[in-house]
Amino acid sequence: MLAEFVARHIGPGPAEQQQMLSALGYDSLDALLDAAVPASIRSTEPLDLPAPGSEAEVTAALRALAQRNRVGTPMIGLGWSRTHTPGVIRRNVLESPSWYTAYTPYQPEISQGRLEALFSFQTLVSDLTALPIAGASLLDESTAAAEAMTMAARVAGPAAKGGVFVVDADTHPQTLALLAARAEPLGIPLQVLDLADGGAALPEGPLLGVLVSCPSSTGGVRDLRALAEAVHARGGLVAAATDLLALTLLTPPGEWGADVAVGSAQRLGVPLFFGGPHAGFMSVREGLARQLPGRLVGLSRDADGRPAYRLALQTREQHIRRDKATSNICTAQVLLAVVSAMYASYHGPEGLRAIATRTHRHAVELATALRAAGVELAHEHFFDTVTAVVPGRADEVVGKARALGVDLRRVDADRVGVSTDETTTAEHVELVRQAFGVQAAEAREEAAAYPAGLARTSSFLTAPVFTDLRSETDLLRYLRRLSDKDYALDRGMIPLGSCTMKLNATTELEPISWPEFADIHPFQPSEDSAGYAELTADLERWLAEITGYDSVSLQPNAGAQGELAGLLAIRAFHRAEGHGERDVCLVPASAHGTNAASAVLAGLRVSVVATTEQGEIDLDDLRAKLATHEGRVAAIMLTYPSTHGVYEETVGEVCSLVHEAGGQVYVDGANLNALVGVARPGAFGADVSHLNLHKTFCIPHGGGGPGVGPVAVRAHLAPYLPNHPLAAQAGPETGTGPISAAPWGSAGILPIPWAYIRLMGAEGLRRATSVAVLSANYVAARLREHYPVLYTGRDGLVAHECILDLRPLTKATGVTVDDVAKRLIDYGFHAPTMSFPVAGTLMVEPTESEDLREIDRFCDAMVAIRQEADAVAEGRWPAGDNPLARAPHPAESLVDDWDRAYTRREAVYPGGASPEGKYWPPVSRIDSAWGDRNLVCACPPASAFEE
Amino acid sequence: MLAEFVARHIGPGPAEQQQMLSALGYDSLDALLDAAVPASIRSTEPLDLPAPGSEAEVTAALRALAQRNRVGTPMIGLGWSRTHTPGVIRRNVLESPSWYTAYTPYQPEISQGRLEALFSFQTLVSDLTALPIAGASLLDESTAAAEAMTMAARVAGPAAKGGVFVVDADTHPQTLALLAARAEPLGIPLQVLDLADGGAALPEGPLLGVLVSCPSSTGGVRDLRALAEAVHARGGLVAAATDLLALTLLTPPGEWGADVAVGSAQRLGVPLFFGGPHAGFMSVREGLARQLPGRLVGLSRDADGRPAYRLALQTREQHIRRDKATSNICTAQVLLAVVSAMYASYHGPEGLRAIATRTHRHAVELATALRAAGVELAHEHFFDTVTAVVPGRADEVVGKARALGVDLRRVDADRVGVSTDETTTAEHVELVRQAFGVQAAEAREEAAAYPAGLARTSSFLTAPVFTDLRSETDLLRYLRRLSDKDYALDRGMIPLGSCTMKLNATTELEPISWPEFADIHPFQPSEDSAGYAELTADLERWLAEITGYDSVSLQPNAGAQGELAGLLAIRAFHRAEGHGERDVCLVPASAHGTNAASAVLAGLRVSVVATTEQGEIDLDDLRAKLATHEGRVAAIMLTYPSTHGVYEETVGEVCSLVHEAGGQVYVDGANLNALVGVARPGAFGADVSHLNLHKTFCIPHGGGGPGVGPVAVRAHLAPYLPNHPLAAQAGPETGTGPISAAPWGSAGILPIPWAYIRLMGAEGLRRATSVAVLSANYVAARLREHYPVLYTGRDGLVAHECILDLRPLTKATGVTVDDVAKRLIDYGFHAPTMSFPVAGTLMVEPTESEDLREIDRFCDAMVAIRQEADAVAEGRWPAGDNPLARAPHPAESLVDDWDRAYTRREAVYPGGASPEGKYWPPVSRIDSAWGDRNLVCACPPASAFEE
Repeated sequence: MLAEFVARHIGPGPAEQQQMLSALGYDSLDALLDAAVPASIRSTEPLDLPAPGSEAEVTAALRALAQRNRVGTPMIGLGWSRTHTPGVIRRNVLESPSWYTAYTPYQPEISQGRLEALFSFQTLVSDLTALPIAGASLLDESTAAAEAMTMAARVAGPAAKGGVFVVDADTHPQTLALLAARAEPLGIPLQVLDLADGGAALPEGPLLGVLVSCPSSTGGVRDLRALAEAVHARGGLVAAATDLLALTLLTPPGEWGADVAVGSAQRLGVPLFFGGPHAGFMSVREGLARQLPGRLVGLSRDADGRPAYRLALQTREQHIRRDKATSNICTAQVLLAVVSAMYASYHGPEGLRAIATRTHRHAVELATALRAAGVELAHEHFFDTVTAVVPGRADEVVGKARALGVDLRRVDADRVGVSTDETTTAEHVELVRQAFGVQAAEAREEAAAYPAGLARTSSFLTAPVFTDLRSETDLLRYLRRLSDKDYALDRGMIPLGSCTMKLNATTELEPISWPEFADIHPFQPSEDSAGYAELTADLERWLAEITGYDSVSLQPNAGAQGELAGLLAIRAFHRAEGHGERDVCLVPASAHGTNAASAVLAGLRVSVVATTEQGEIDLDDLRAKLATHEGRVAAIMLTYPSTHGVYEETVGEVCSLVHEAGGQVYVDGANLNALVGVARPGAFGADVSHLNLHKTFCIPHGGGGPGVGPVAVRAHLAPYLPNHPLAAQAGPETGTGPISAAPWGSAGILPIPWAYIRLMGAEGLRRATSVAVLSANYVAARLREHYPVLYTGRDGLVAHECILDLRPLTKATGVTVDDVAKRLIDYGFHAPTMSFPVAGTLMVEPTESEDLREIDRFCDAMVAIRQEADAVAEGRWPAGDNPLARAPHPAESLVDDWDRAYTRREAVYPGGASPEGKYWPPVSRIDSAWGDRNLVCACPPASAFEE
Repeated sequence: MLAEFVARHIGPGPAEQQQMLSALGYDSLDALLDAAVPASIRSTEPLDLPAPGSEAEVTAALRALAQRNRVGTPMIGLGWSRTHTPGVIRRNVLESPSWYTAYTPYQPEISQGRLEALFSFQTLVSDLTALPIAGASLLDESTAAAEAMTMAARVAGPAAKGGVFVVDADTHPQTLALLAARAEPLGIPLQVLDLADGGAALPEGPLLGVLVSCPSSTGGVRDLRALAEAVHARGGLVAAATDLLALTLLTPPGEWGADVAVGSAQRLGVPLFFGGPHAGFMSVREGLARQLPGRLVGLSRDADGRPAYRLALQTREQHIRRDKATSNICTAQVLLAVVSAMYASYHGPEGLRAIATRTHRHAVELATALRAAGVELAHEHFFDTVTAVVPGRADEVVGKARALGVDLRRVDADRVGVSTDETTTAEHVELVRQAFGVQAAEAREEAAAYPAGLARTSSFLTAPVFTDLRSETDLLRYLRRLSDKDYALDRGMIPLGSCTMKLNATTELEPISWPEFADIHPFQPSEDSAGYAELTADLERWLAEITGYDSVSLQPNAGAQGELAGLLAIRAFHRAEGHGERDVCLVPASAHGTNAASAVLAGLRVSVVATTEQGEIDLDDLRAKLATHEGRVAAIMLTYPSTHGVYEETVGEVCSLVHEAGGQVYVDGANLNALVGVARPGAFGADVSHLNLHKTFCIPHGGGGPGVGPVAVRAHLAPYLPNHPLAAQAGPETGTGPISAAPWGSAGILPIPWAYIRLMGAEGLRRATSVAVLSANYVAARLREHYPVLYTGRDGLVAHECILDLRPLTKATGVTVDDVAKRLIDYGFHAPTMSFPVAGTLMVEPTESEDLREIDRFCDAMVAIRQEADAVAEGRWPAGDNPLARAPHPAESLVDDWDRAYTRREAVYPGGASPEGKYWPPVSRIDSAWGDRNLVCACPPASAFEE
């Protein structure tokens, strides 16, 4: 008996499933699976998971967990601050399916809303840091710092090459630990130094650069101009870990000489979320744009000359450059970056400055009282964090504060840190004073606790988007206008191969807004997060059961981080076994580009294994590569089912060969949606996998993040999972250090997969997999005669996705993959995955959540497009003037003179499509190259808008 | 110092306000108010309200109130049942601005989404009750029953005329009390009888009809065919108070002979909300459609022949028929009706039947156990309510159950009612058994506790909208498609005169979803609603302060109900004073149609007072009417500022004249948005007002409901406010009985006005009023040269709205009010109020929430439309073929041959409007008359969709 929710999650009902099975010639889902999945990897036992609960029961269970968390008053700092998320933003971004169910904006014509919002985010970061190029967000502050470090190594000139990278000792401990964990496999000499005195302390010899915190982790505000000059003089890069709110008052990094700024935008409106997800950021000076990791949104123009946004400089990225990429980052934190950008629009420059001033004022009041009582302060100059020196009394003060309801930072036995924020009130300051046992003292109203020379003098956020949206009505309408431009799952199918765009059910999503999940600081005492502890323990156990591994770490906050964590575990394992020489990572030619990029970051050399014409790993080449690298093979990275969407028969043999050669088997979990309940990688031969909870386990894609990429390992690798310097429970003592800034990564969205697993139960999960496979095969069967299906396995079956080969069509008609993808927009669809893993193809993954009507609508559209292409081939339409070449068609294209070879109706209601529910793209085809030649990545200042 | 939130609520910032003031020639808001508002009515003291809180503070305060409520397990019945609101519906309807900020669908071309949803609601009610015509919802079950009673009186043939109306004694007590309260002023003899034995008990003499409950209040399921026949034989009307969920299993009223069915759709997915709001319903047999009170959605067609929905048979309604109307109802419960309709789509017929079967099964299990233990049951046949006869032990059993966490109904000292519902579990049944002290007994699995002859055999909900949306993905996309068709405040301005479409801030709205507000049964023991008690007490006090009255009742759940309550208080006062003969209600010619309709329902005769050419009450005619009706005048009903949008100077004199004549002064609070903080009706001469919390106090219009219409009175009328038979705290012992089914009416949405008042504070509220007046005058000033402003007060100023006279334009050009209204859609606006209070005019109310950009955009559109009209007048465009006559223009109109006198661009991007954010109406101008001639008010069955 399937749980009630299963019918909500799975699109095709029983009758539709039967109809699809009949079309394929199978009697039952089981018969189909038996045919498609090799018996050698099939699981025989049902998954040992809790019995499924109804939506009401699971909601009640999550409420019970939530009640075991405690929303306190954390004044702990360390990179997380409480903030008020404006209700209008929470409701209309964080809680709006039109934002959270959107995909990464790879199809920019149907992503203008979130691209515009990301452009605002970039402008926000660029303006506040005073560095001209900011990316569309990174995963968190600590990994952004690591990216700065690797950038320093990459761009180092001859004098700096091979030099040391110096980190300010007064940097957040999790960042220090993460930098250490990243530097070691890359062979970057890392030195942690007290940089309070400027450049004097810098070591001799080649210098890659420095990372300095401003304000520092314990709150110090320092003049860093001399340091920057000294580093530059030696050819090094200056990176600043900074705080956007502070920069409304303080001289920004770009103005004192930093080349790079990194940090977290969390305090701009994003809940604490027990550590994540938040938008990390990075901005750079001119000249470093092509070095920027992650995504960059730029302004370009469409075929009609309209301004239009799209991802810029894609050639830097991992999916193109593979092991030569600037980074393994392949996602961003779009949803959270949008929240922070809208928070900036909501408050505007004056509002942000007012919040910063109030925050600073509370810190000054506290500092004044402490000083008046003779308490020494660690820093004369500060913004929001006052570190008090109370020799031997830190525990006592922290304990007293906690008894009064406020949590402070115990820096060490002698020092206590107090961080104020947007939500701090006079009462909070009073409680902290009580904890220190000091009286109030009059602070001078106008006094600022930083030198006049470090006060910000330049303007910021002068673009209209930051000055014109002050009322809630204005912001509400702006958010609606933006989201109306975009196509997300709330409009229709997003059949993206390898991305598993399935239902993100409301019952799964609602709890993340509850204060007891949203408003917990990651470093509150652990008894405040007992609910989270139970939830993460459950989830680790269930994911281990589902994947057949022994241990799981939830810390990686993106798939690429999970990959890196897995590879670092493999590396550490080999070293512990005395095989530090094993440094070769075998990667099949068809692998995700990230695999190779991650391997490089883990200090491994990439060796490519060929794939056969059938798309399988070429066993002969594998044997040859194993022989070539004998004794040096660290691992192979597979994807299963393969990136070609096929259950390869030979996977067992691949695993055996690599194991025999002393290597470890890494199975990329990208395609786990074809395995859950059917086969377990940990049981069929793999040693480690990362999962993508934002694919298989229903975390929404958020328009391009957040993702969650746990790493799952067999027992022998468990000692080498990530851990965390500030949370012993977050990983093994022998672990490889933090892979993310927060102990449990993006903990705040883990209620989503928890709810999904509880709602579906073992049988429901298996059913979802079965229907995902059924739907993919149904699509393949329906489209096969119109487009060759490139790879298939046994019985001509695919797994959960299929690759449609457009190369013959392109050759015959000139119609490209791009044309088809853009034309699908006119039909009301998001394009499938383009040209991955094979150029000139489309990879379609319908998932189990699309019902037969929608799948048929998609197939009908693809068939109709094929007929349109034939019309071009037959010369009925000219090559350059047909609805494919000129797709997509915005509404505006209809109004003026029409001199095209096809009709307006053919353009926008093709195949007799109903006007009902028509999605109108706001722009026509975007010229991406033009934008890269004329790079614009942030709003021009207001003056540019004057006539 | 204004509260922070004030700048979020009020659209124009300080600079914009200054710019608008300058345009009008005033230095300050105070100067403008001094000029506009007669000194004689101005308040001098600031309002005595709590200091404003920030959004975070007010949210925290509401959380504290919420925590004083207790979500229990109410198995009380009495017309309210717990239900699971599907998350996808909560998030995407109840919590979605695109649904809740919409206005009443008077402009059907931009309301097709909610009209379609209401059409589904009508189909749901019609199918389940098996009566062909169902309305688009009524206010609640008890008032729907009262409407059935007055319908019986209206349609009575000669034999029945003047006869008695009989009510089944086993009807919910609040319905019995409300019927009594309504019947008395109308002179309808009401008799409460035990109808359990069919028609035998019916009294001799003329019989208007009966209202019978099926299932009955205590749960009995009876065969009512004989009763129906007996009543029909005597020419009476048979009305059934029924339960939609029960009707999935039981013979529906339409099949056993009922002419009318009424009830509440609450249990179909709408939270308990401590009593309201919910969608009441009424359906009727053929022949009674024109008698149906409230709104009716019908299918018609647009100018291009597309099917299109719109409100049907408008000529029945109060705004047209005034004192001849079928009812004073002028709103519906659209938002809640949409929720219930979508709940039916989500579950479908099988799903609803499964829920009903489960619910019934739990009741059967309980009954079996009670019977086995020798406990007598009040009814052999039942659906979900088991009433146990426990002589003398009712309090004990109810008390034990409460101790176990379950609340039951104490029917009387000897009887306990237990109602099961969708959320009931075996554990709940077990707890109830414990409370009765009985053991479990095996119930036969197949046993139903109703006779086979009363089982439903007919099918229902066969239309695709109820059978094809089973997955969450499907429903999500359907909701999105519907809402995309509609224009609501989240897209742009809705400048509806007299309707005050202002910001509905998220901070005000969020709390109503919290379980501690949403999931409280109105008849749980009062300690479970301590938070509500404080909230309602606060709100009553604040509203009294704002209006200058002494007492407030929050019970009326719509403005019309507030009106009726106020008039009933006046009537009761006169009778208590020994002046029962005072039965004349003076109503100015310009009054809202509802005023007259309500007066009739209060047993008053309407006498119309003329208005002068300046739009003011004609004092001479008033004196004449007072003389004519000397000694008989009960009251005058004014609107202030007048329905012409002017602060009349003479209001004091009017009050005095009526008072001198012994009458009471009723001030309709529709225009309170021009008074808050500036003048108080209770202080300047009025005795009673109703308020519209959905206008002035930010409850969203919900697409046409819910509304909340509290009544506020001076002390001498306070003893005659509504009260409630089941909640002594809800009103004075001497009160006039219930005016709504629930003690505090739509309690569940009262957190909204509570939050608004707390966020704004006295000064903020006054500022809102000031800016509302400023904006209206700015619009008047900008448009005056293009359209005459019909009425103005001192200094040529209007109050918070202005009337644009289109009659000269129509005369000169043939362009009608309708043309302008529809053309505004092409410009991206909702039309202003049409032809009220003067035919051929538009009444514009910008409210304080629209910023200057949006106001100017509107004025620019109106000016451009004037120019378009001139072009028609000048013959540049033919009369029938111009963008005005053919407005609005759906996107589809662009694609085919274009043989119009104007261009496509002129059609859809007029005045060089930007395509950015363009709203596309889904249909062109709707032919309303055609639909009335071909009335279709419910989905055809699935067979109609077969080809």
